[in-house]
Amino acid sequence: MADEQGCVSPLELFNCIAAQGERVKTLKAGQALKDEVDCAVKILQSLKMSYRAAVGEDYKADCPPGSLAPGGDSGPGTTEAEEDFVDPWTVQTSSAKGIDYDKLIVRFGSSKIDKELINRIEKATGQRPHRFLRRGIFFSHRDMNQVLDAYENKKPFYLYTGRGPSSEAMHVGHLIPFIFTKWLQDVFNVPLVIQMTDDEKYLWKDLTLDQAYGYAVENAKDIIACGFDINKTFIFSDLDYMGSSTGFYKNVVKIQKHVTFNQVKGIFGFTDSDSIGKISFPAIQAAPSFSNSFPHIFGDKTDIQCLIPCAIDQDPYFRMTRDVAPRIGYPKPALLHSTFFPALQGAQTKMSASDPNSSIFLIDTAKQIKTKVNKHAFSGGRDTIEEHRQFGGNCDVDVSFMYLTFFLEDDDKLEQIRKDYSSGAMLTGELKKELIEVLQPLIAEHQARRKEVTDEIVKEFMTPRKLSYDHQ
Amino acid sequence: MADEQGCVSPLELFNCIAAQGERVKTLKAGQALKDEVDCAVKILQSLKMSYRAAVGEDYKADCPPGSLAPGGDSGPGTTEAEEDFVDPWTVQTSSAKGIDYDKLIVRFGSSKIDKELINRIEKATGQRPHRFLRRGIFFSHRDMNQVLDAYENKKPFYLYTGRGPSSEAMHVGHLIPFIFTKWLQDVFNVPLVIQMTDDEKYLWKDLTLDQAYGYAVENAKDIIACGFDINKTFIFSDLDYMGSSTGFYKNVVKIQKHVTFNQVKGIFGFTDSDSIGKISFPAIQAAPSFSNSFPHIFGDKTDIQCLIPCAIDQDPYFRMTRDVAPRIGYPKPALLHSTFFPALQGAQTKMSASDPNSSIFLIDTAKQIKTKVNKHAFSGGRDTIEEHRQFGGNCDVDVSFMYLTFFLEDDDKLEQIRKDYSSGAMLTGELKKELIEVLQPLIAEHQARRKEVTDEIVKEFMTPRKLSYDHQ
Repeated sequence: MADEQGCVSPLELFNCIAAQGERVKTLKAGQALKDEVDCAVKILQSLKMSYRAAVGEDYKADCPPGSLAPGGDSGPGTTEAEEDFVDPWTVQTSSAKGIDYDKLIVRFGSSKIDKELINRIEKATGQRPHRFLRRGIFFSHRDMNQVLDAYENKKPFYLYTGRGPSSEAMHVGHLIPFIFTKWLQDVFNVPLVIQMTDDEKYLWKDLTLDQAYGYAVENAKDIIACGFDINKTFIFSDLDYMGSSTGFYKNVVKIQKHVTFNQVKGIFGFTDSDSIGKISFPAIQAAPSFSNSFPHIFGDKTDIQCLIPCAIDQDPYFRMTRDVAPRIGYPKPALLHSTFFPALQGAQTKMSASDPNSSIFLIDTAKQIKTKVNKHAFSGGRDTIEEHRQFGGNCDVDVSFMYLTFFLEDDDKLEQIRKDYSSGAMLTGELKKELIEVLQPLIAEHQARRKEVTDEIVKEFMTPRKLSYDHQ
Repeated sequence: MADEQGCVSPLELFNCIAAQGERVKTLKAGQALKDEVDCAVKILQSLKMSYRAAVGEDYKADCPPGSLAPGGDSGPGTTEAEEDFVDPWTVQTSSAKGIDYDKLIVRFGSSKIDKELINRIEKATGQRPHRFLRRGIFFSHRDMNQVLDAYENKKPFYLYTGRGPSSEAMHVGHLIPFIFTKWLQDVFNVPLVIQMTDDEKYLWKDLTLDQAYGYAVENAKDIIACGFDINKTFIFSDLDYMGSSTGFYKNVVKIQKHVTFNQVKGIFGFTDSDSIGKISFPAIQAAPSFSNSFPHIFGDKTDIQCLIPCAIDQDPYFRMTRDVAPRIGYPKPALLHSTFFPALQGAQTKMSASDPNSSIFLIDTAKQIKTKVNKHAFSGGRDTIEEHRQFGGNCDVDVSFMYLTFFLEDDDKLEQIRKDYSSGAMLTGELKKELIEVLQPLIAEHQARRKEVTDEIVKEFMTPRKLSYDHQ
């Protein structure tokens, strides 16, 4: 109901239904002709149907369309935390601290990654937990204990993650799931499949097929530069792999048989004006969760557990996948969810490939990094040095500090910075300098590794082939 | 808007919009509060949107929703012929003469295959027109003159037809498009692609993927037995070919980007409770209409004209295809439409693979054919021999006579039978004997040819490969 002339928003519909309900009451109570009453009732019914179509649930008199509805107006009385909005295309919060992740866990019905689980991962792998685990950057999971059960019983599992290649420009935030997935591959020694959803980007954006595929290949180079093991990693473009796999389309169509439009409407907020490509796409992101989508790796085995590290905004796809899995005889994929990487301008703003100052990009020079951090990184510092010395800075909203939690490996040093900045002992310029000194070598090293990624190496990563892994 | 409690029919919506329009006028003209007018306008907009969603086109004040809406209630005043219902899954008529095809041409907006077009085909090919053309069995077309223009200018075109493999059991009616397509291939000497929509059957029926694929292969044998040239014919299962073609999925996703749920709802009558597989399937039947779906045959050429011979119930897929084609830079496919093959029990009844007596099946023995025709073929004869001799039989409803129009090659003999049966000179038993004598050798010869179709031959037909054809 959104992109046509004369459109009516869910809240307007809600108000119309209330008004029309009153009108029906008045007409019934008065001397109105039967035809007039009938018509008013039909209008009321039609409005309620439109409301259900637009909002995904039935009209309730005391319950205006909430902030959960994609793009919906938030009615009066919604609280701050409820205004966070998270789906695969939009992440919105009005808080400079970012999304309230504890509330998101409750809303999505996932589980918190707690100390106990982190300890169990450490025990199972014999490795120190990655800083993303230690610091709550991967903060939520589904069925991770089941993956560890399998691992401890020497049963195989595999990793699946992905990227939507919407442009050539990747920023450091895009690396978060890949940095973590590489660590998981290393410590568990398992095969990994990486889906490049070039078909999705073609469907959603104003791109040609060739452009979308070109971005997939370019982005694959940055992903490979994260250090994945070529013998254990298969990267695929949907546009390519759909036409070269005996297993992928079969799983796509299996999933598509078991998901209705009503369901994807409820989960993703699709409307009747959306293309049938968008409507059916969720099955394509779901399919790699099942091992027989990769016959060259897993043969016809359908029961190999999948573990998906991803940002939490991708969870709707996998909630759908987990709902379908038992109905088509497959195990549910397990998940590890990360928080979002904040834009330089603050956690409540949006990173954008078309705004080079909204993040640190993987092609930035040392000088650009320095300028961007100094000029654009939102600061939790005070207005004057005097005030800062007296009251201290606010790490909770300071983007430079947030970036350090992502990239500074040394826990003690990070804690010292937090203390010093909060107390006012450390000034904003000094904090930014710390970040610049972390980011400059990180990006430079990435660029050096990416230069080593030849077309032949990309081609090998992207060729369907047998992968070597221990638990076979 | 159909399958929920408190539903509102398109006609009711139409009337509500009219009433609400009046109300808005009255409110605007009177002393109503601005809020009240605004709300009434919003309600009017919402109703119009619902109307468009339900009917597939905009509300027009003087034009109530017509009989075109699939499954729509036929209002008072609809005539008998308007009650014919034709879509890819349902063909319904209450007339023993079958569907009113002239009305269908008007309703679908196609063109009649007239004497002039048949003459042009004869002139272009130098061959006597097939009996299906001479007798109006292929009765309707889209852009056939364009195909002939291309042919006469030595430009290449190709044929595309298909089958939904819902069971192993094929009956003689299923052969109609293939018999005609073989003739087209012979007289025009062009390549042919045959789509087995095993994915469709999996999505619509209670079948496993393996069953649907198995039926596709079995049905392919019967199709091959029609005599197609192995050097000019590619038969493919969707489940198979999607995973082995570099071009097919790309066209599917292109089409899927350019068709909305609103559109397939309007064309095919899908509802929100349908699976996303069904909703997106029309793109899969559309894609073979474009030559670059077959890179092994046509390379990356996108401009080779496609001609689709099919039963008219498949036209909705190709109306959609023709609508999309110019928007993705491809030529519209041309079509040749056939009438439906009647069930033994009469043109208003339904053939069914689960009722062996509803048609002549390709595995029937000579004895079964004789028994079925004698016992089950609906007769246009009179109740007693005396009455029949006096008043004559009715060929228009006699299924044996209808079958003869499909399968008896000799025009003069057919006309003689028509005259004799209509006059009463020929009795029902004699008419049935004529049919039995046509069907028995036809089926026996089919069975003999099918026996020659080895697994290797099927495999070759179904292997993506270069085809030889003249106009390259």
